[in-house]
Amino acid sequence: MGEHDIFLFLLSLASLLTCARLLGEIARRIGLPLVVGELLAGIVLGPTIFGRIAPAAQRALFASSMPKSMLSGYTNVAVVLLLVVAGLEVDLDVVWRRGRSAFLTSVFGIVFPATGGLALGLLLPDSDLVEPGHRMLFALFVGVALSISALPVIAKTLLDLGLFKTDVGLLVMAAAMVDDLTGWLCFSLLLGPMHGHGTDAAAIGRTLALTLGFVAVTMFGLRPLFDRTLDRLGRDRHTAPRRALSLLVLLALFGASTTQAIGIHAVFGGFVVGVAAGDSSKLTERTRAVIHEFVTSIFAPVFFASLGLKVDFVRAFDLRLCLFVFSVACLAKVLGGTLGARLGGLRLRSAAAVGFGLNARGAMEIILATLALEAGLIRDQFFVALVAMALLTSLLSGPMMSALLRDDEQEDVGLLFREGAFVRDIAAKTAGAAIDELVQSIAETLGELAPIARKSVLEREAVASTGVGDEIAIPHGAVEGLKRPFLAVGLSRDGVDFDAHDGRPARIIVLLLMPPRTYDLEVRILASLARVLNSAENRARLLMATPADARAIFDGARTQPRRRRPPLPSMADM
Amino acid sequence: MGEHDIFLFLLSLASLLTCARLLGEIARRIGLPLVVGELLAGIVLGPTIFGRIAPAAQRALFASSMPKSMLSGYTNVAVVLLLVVAGLEVDLDVVWRRGRSAFLTSVFGIVFPATGGLALGLLLPDSDLVEPGHRMLFALFVGVALSISALPVIAKTLLDLGLFKTDVGLLVMAAAMVDDLTGWLCFSLLLGPMHGHGTDAAAIGRTLALTLGFVAVTMFGLRPLFDRTLDRLGRDRHTAPRRALSLLVLLALFGASTTQAIGIHAVFGGFVVGVAAGDSSKLTERTRAVIHEFVTSIFAPVFFASLGLKVDFVRAFDLRLCLFVFSVACLAKVLGGTLGARLGGLRLRSAAAVGFGLNARGAMEIILATLALEAGLIRDQFFVALVAMALLTSLLSGPMMSALLRDDEQEDVGLLFREGAFVRDIAAKTAGAAIDELVQSIAETLGELAPIARKSVLEREAVASTGVGDEIAIPHGAVEGLKRPFLAVGLSRDGVDFDAHDGRPARIIVLLLMPPRTYDLEVRILASLARVLNSAENRARLLMATPADARAIFDGARTQPRRRRPPLPSMADM
Repeated sequence: MGEHDIFLFLLSLASLLTCARLLGEIARRIGLPLVVGELLAGIVLGPTIFGRIAPAAQRALFASSMPKSMLSGYTNVAVVLLLVVAGLEVDLDVVWRRGRSAFLTSVFGIVFPATGGLALGLLLPDSDLVEPGHRMLFALFVGVALSISALPVIAKTLLDLGLFKTDVGLLVMAAAMVDDLTGWLCFSLLLGPMHGHGTDAAAIGRTLALTLGFVAVTMFGLRPLFDRTLDRLGRDRHTAPRRALSLLVLLALFGASTTQAIGIHAVFGGFVVGVAAGDSSKLTERTRAVIHEFVTSIFAPVFFASLGLKVDFVRAFDLRLCLFVFSVACLAKVLGGTLGARLGGLRLRSAAAVGFGLNARGAMEIILATLALEAGLIRDQFFVALVAMALLTSLLSGPMMSALLRDDEQEDVGLLFREGAFVRDIAAKTAGAAIDELVQSIAETLGELAPIARKSVLEREAVASTGVGDEIAIPHGAVEGLKRPFLAVGLSRDGVDFDAHDGRPARIIVLLLMPPRTYDLEVRILASLARVLNSAENRARLLMATPADARAIFDGARTQPRRRRPPLPSMADM
Repeated sequence: MGEHDIFLFLLSLASLLTCARLLGEIARRIGLPLVVGELLAGIVLGPTIFGRIAPAAQRALFASSMPKSMLSGYTNVAVVLLLVVAGLEVDLDVVWRRGRSAFLTSVFGIVFPATGGLALGLLLPDSDLVEPGHRMLFALFVGVALSISALPVIAKTLLDLGLFKTDVGLLVMAAAMVDDLTGWLCFSLLLGPMHGHGTDAAAIGRTLALTLGFVAVTMFGLRPLFDRTLDRLGRDRHTAPRRALSLLVLLALFGASTTQAIGIHAVFGGFVVGVAAGDSSKLTERTRAVIHEFVTSIFAPVFFASLGLKVDFVRAFDLRLCLFVFSVACLAKVLGGTLGARLGGLRLRSAAAVGFGLNARGAMEIILATLALEAGLIRDQFFVALVAMALLTSLLSGPMMSALLRDDEQEDVGLLFREGAFVRDIAAKTAGAAIDELVQSIAETLGELAPIARKSVLEREAVASTGVGDEIAIPHGAVEGLKRPFLAVGLSRDGVDFDAHDGRPARIIVLLLMPPRTYDLEVRILASLARVLNSAENRARLLMATPADARAIFDGARTQPRRRRPPLPSMADM
């Protein structure tokens, strides 16, 4: 390896990172996801722009053999770690507990777009295929590509709408997780034949068996081992995080090389290890934050920018194909998701919001498309169409969800507040005790339902804690026998830890009791509460409020102009 | 790039990381630095052991062309980031403020080993050289290699001895920083001729001019720009750290490619960018911690392990050469450092402790040796001798410093305590106010020296804050006109922020006033104080102590068995 190769490698890496971060930040400033800017960086530095202006310089910098391999070492690690971070966000408990409704939503959210994609793949003219002889494989891939959902984009949208930790929010998240897992699994199985490992039933069966074996070993063998090891690594402030970080990355690398050896892609191994590790309660928030920060600021931008080096986006832009892919993808996913959520018990408008939520494809779709391109399964034109679809569906998802859950749907939380209780100084130091105290404050009204309410809210809290950040927690639960919703608002001087994503203890604790199976009403109440509590001014006023002041604040929910929280970071930014 | 290449790359990376982290942790458990285990991992996986047992498998995994280039992409980024982290630890303010004594110590600490190395290089038989015709270049390299000091090892030793933030500690650190900077600069200049950029005066002059230009632009142009940019990136908890991280890494990559283009090595660029960025007050502790954690847990172990792949350590082990290099290195550096510190005003024993401190070579020496090996300047045998010397000098440094500053040297802090003051409840909330309050408590004894003492301690605090971790701060200063040392001990219920490395506010604040130029006495007093305060039990007792109890605790300093703090993490671990 010559000195000049190292120079070119470092310079290409530096250019990609700089351009990607710069354009990413600009994209964010004008309200687009980071990943749009990062992809654009590759388009600028790739054959599309830089290559047109100075083809020789572009080729020297990005296409020399040795520096290119060195860069591909970096991007391969990047994409594995990206999938680890994505896997960390999957919470299997949420899926198990959401049960039937999550199952219906995700099944319809997969079956519809998979069918649509399959049909599209079968009907496209031969000229859109790399090899018409492999049409079935191609059609299956399109089916898979159209069925995945971008968990991170959905999480971010839910956070913005104040619905992240609600029952409906968890339902969308759970459905998206199942879609993601199924999608990656199916895609992995397609890779065997793609790589010429044989298309006969025996070869596919072997790959399937090995893949399921890998998933089983990782989830049931590795997960408890990971927990125990983390436990044994101890709690030392200085060494424990580094040990946990090393352990996570080396397991991901082993998982990635195992799946690569099986004949499915490395990223699947990273993803499954991420899911298994993410479930561990021993993995601290700090370790998650460090790997998240490092991956999103150093690795992901280079990976997404490097995609632009592979393809001339202008030459490969085919409007007809883009429109086809986009229409089929949206139509099938929105319809499927909506239908599933409707059957799961939601009103049409909320169900449609779930459908649009699941429709977001984001970074995961782009990674899938890249792998298919590299495996020679799709042409550049189809790759560009998938990337465009991924970006557009992600952009559409937030505004559509927000429009469907709009103001005219809001609930009168002022009334609920007046009928409920207001505890100005909660003594409790733990989430459980705070819930107790708030249930106690409306125990008279609840009568014999009080113990049931208490149990239901505590159980719900155990599934996923209800701290929503900004010093707010909204513990809630469905109470069998309850006829209408109840609200009890408490303030805590020192704050109570509700495990919020921003790590801050909750000082405003809103207990919400719902009649069973009233998902829609719950969404509307929570959206109205978010409208009140998203304003920093309202929160400050509430913390010093007399009961009369508090009433005025909650009464303001109907008229006050909608304020959006500042965007929160998450994988969605990728 | 085939699927099999990606598999081999991921597997080789996973094996290196796993083996390095595992052996690193074992090394640490038995009291050796992490880097010993990490190097050993490479020896196990390289030609030395794995290659002897299964040569074909070893070659397939680590020597296939494409996976090897991909891995080298990773290790090249790793070594640049390693030097960034090393650079971050250099604090130029400390160097400027230590002035004459740091200057003397570092000059002697460079000149002696440089001369010794040069002589060794000139006297070794031709058979030890790659090319006898380049003997002068080789001798110059040996001179440079023997003069560098490992800042991180020294920092860790000082932390262990409780001397990190004392005047003597700062002196050693400042001298080591100058040694490091000079060593890397000289080494970089040698790389031009090594890479055949010409050995004539014009070529060397050009490289020197470009290198100094790069350093000047980075330190004076980039540093303020970095500050301003970080400032503008804002204080948002979520996005700011990721932006700072990206900015730091992309600047490092650009610096690295610039120095690589100049004809000196990429690592020098990373190092200089690290030094420039490390000086920025806008770079938060959190960003430093994240990059440090990630580099030491993911990148550094792979880099050090990969060294073992390059060389067969058993075959290349030459005892004669190891002894030569080790003896000359130790003798010259210890003598030089001791003499410099003695001339700088220290007593012989403390000066010798400084000498042994500077003698630690650590990871920096190993990186230097690797680059020389790759440039074809040294033979495998000499590489192994340098690595062995680096490890041995690092291992020796702590015990020798600790022995030289041993118990019989200790000061009677019990007496000082009885003559001083004890403030059981400090009201101050800031470091400055706490210092005020403690000076006030002995103002009567100090008389007209009180304002001078206050000014001196505050000035010293401004150079480097004196929080030493474990809720202890030892603000101190030399007071012109003072005849003997004074101690005032204060306790703070809520703690006062003295910017300790562990982030904890100080609850035990010890004000120490010294007569001017009594470095030795200061070292002894601080070592005795460390002996009292290193014990968690003593600290707990002190926090609830009556004046009589406190007296008893400080009286115990002479007799109490020495307790060591648990090892603190730092770059030394590498």
